[in-house]
Amino acid sequence: MSLLVVGSVAFDSLRTPHGDAEEILGGSATYFSVTASYFAPVNVVAVVGDDFGADAISVFTRRSIDIQGLERAKGKTFRWRGQYDVDMNEARTLETQLNVFEHFAPKIPPVYLNSEFVFLGNIDPLLQLHVRQQLPQARLVACDTMNYWISRKPEELKRTLAAVNLLVINETEARMLSGTDNLKRAATEIRALGPNVVVIKRGEYGACLFKDTTIFFAPGYPLEQVYDPTGAGDTFAGGFMGYLARSADLSDAGLRRALVYGSVMASFAVEEFGLSRLLRLQRQEIEARFQEFKCMTHFDV
Amino acid sequence: MSLLVVGSVAFDSLRTPHGDAEEILGGSATYFSVTASYFAPVNVVAVVGDDFGADAISVFTRRSIDIQGLERAKGKTFRWRGQYDVDMNEARTLETQLNVFEHFAPKIPPVYLNSEFVFLGNIDPLLQLHVRQQLPQARLVACDTMNYWISRKPEELKRTLAAVNLLVINETEARMLSGTDNLKRAATEIRALGPNVVVIKRGEYGACLFKDTTIFFAPGYPLEQVYDPTGAGDTFAGGFMGYLARSADLSDAGLRRALVYGSVMASFAVEEFGLSRLLRLQRQEIEARFQEFKCMTHFDV
Repeated sequence: MSLLVVGSVAFDSLRTPHGDAEEILGGSATYFSVTASYFAPVNVVAVVGDDFGADAISVFTRRSIDIQGLERAKGKTFRWRGQYDVDMNEARTLETQLNVFEHFAPKIPPVYLNSEFVFLGNIDPLLQLHVRQQLPQARLVACDTMNYWISRKPEELKRTLAAVNLLVINETEARMLSGTDNLKRAATEIRALGPNVVVIKRGEYGACLFKDTTIFFAPGYPLEQVYDPTGAGDTFAGGFMGYLARSADLSDAGLRRALVYGSVMASFAVEEFGLSRLLRLQRQEIEARFQEFKCMTHFDV
Repeated sequence: MSLLVVGSVAFDSLRTPHGDAEEILGGSATYFSVTASYFAPVNVVAVVGDDFGADAISVFTRRSIDIQGLERAKGKTFRWRGQYDVDMNEARTLETQLNVFEHFAPKIPPVYLNSEFVFLGNIDPLLQLHVRQQLPQARLVACDTMNYWISRKPEELKRTLAAVNLLVINETEARMLSGTDNLKRAATEIRALGPNVVVIKRGEYGACLFKDTTIFFAPGYPLEQVYDPTGAGDTFAGGFMGYLARSADLSDAGLRRALVYGSVMASFAVEEFGLSRLLRLQRQEIEARFQEFKCMTHFDV
């Protein structure tokens, strides 16, 4: 089944201990849709500027991503400049130019309105809610958010959370949103706000999923070198939602596999700069790493 | 098969956000042996002072721990005073009185000399090596260490590591010992120093085991409240080594189960102050939590 993502498309400039990159294609909707395209047909709603050229467009079209919802506005595409220090765990933002993203008002093409699987990337919670309300038939609506919205628009965010089925959030932000440092209580508090399923991303420590009485953990894939963590969270979400859209299996077993596919895809993303590794993945590499996750976590009783 | 532990016995005083405790029984050999006693017969080598009363002794004897190696020296028992702040992840040492522990020279009773499973708790690496050399028949010799020895006695520690089969170490110390922040490379570096198996403890994020090409992860058990993390690492080691001594199964499958039993026991330890929870465990509680770890980590392919 097809999967709709609403989010940002950007040009990123990065400084890392392993090298620099200038104006490479990035943004939450980009990482998400490229990743999810390995699993299911993807429709993308985002905005780019008049500087968004054929090369950038072809990244989407070569992955058969539907870009009817990729709006072209007058002005420059969103730009972000960041730096990673030695531990690579957190980006330091050096510069943000919102450009056309500043006045982004997602427009859902009519053909997307019956989308069953939806991911609301990290944008203003008011916009997330507006999109969600246009998609009453969706089977699963997931969203992401960040510290900025948690502190600046807490009431708007709560209204959005009350209208979605699933939240994907990083651990620090889960603590901030719930007001508790404890992982399990944080998940309980967040689920009480609306989402039946809460997925908490823990960086190199992996990810975990909370739903009713189910708690499921996947470790981070142990890489010898992380080159560029940009987009890892959106890549995780793309693998997670992509697998769910492909399988249409929202059972406990399906959600577990989805969490592992999310972790698999995120582990590839950070192996090279930007989208490079994700753009030349083979299906069998994905499945082989999925099996590795089984080897790393299973034991006989 | 019986299991020998060499380490410290102490009286701990703690301040935590959940309450205080004064002079409660602690120390690495204590947490280890009480925990391992649920799995296998345990022999303990440690030193206590002339203030170590019948109540404290009975903690060992009620768990059928052999205390022929518990030396009584003139003076006071080792005392440690520490404080945990809100996040409970790291203790701040307020006071250390080594007392009789300062001149601890482990004496192995002759009946312990054919021990097949040995745990060298966190003491001076020279003493660890001295004990190890007296136990040539051991099938598995594991050791622990800490930042203090890594920085103060690096050469002595390397000689000890070259003589043991397994190192249990926390993540921060693994980074310090290996000189790399990367988990996988740290394990490779440490294995090159001697131990064929490296177990890295990651606090609330669980633990992982490295051996040849095997990498195995267990998550931390998600508790709603951590009351007292004191001794969690030694409890982990007690569950891990206790299971191995009981099963005598050093296969890949056996080591995986041992890592989970270590995680199970550590999760109980932190639920109450000091040894309280560990001293009133039931075998079926241990097995039930082991099953919970399976539920939290397994997925169908």
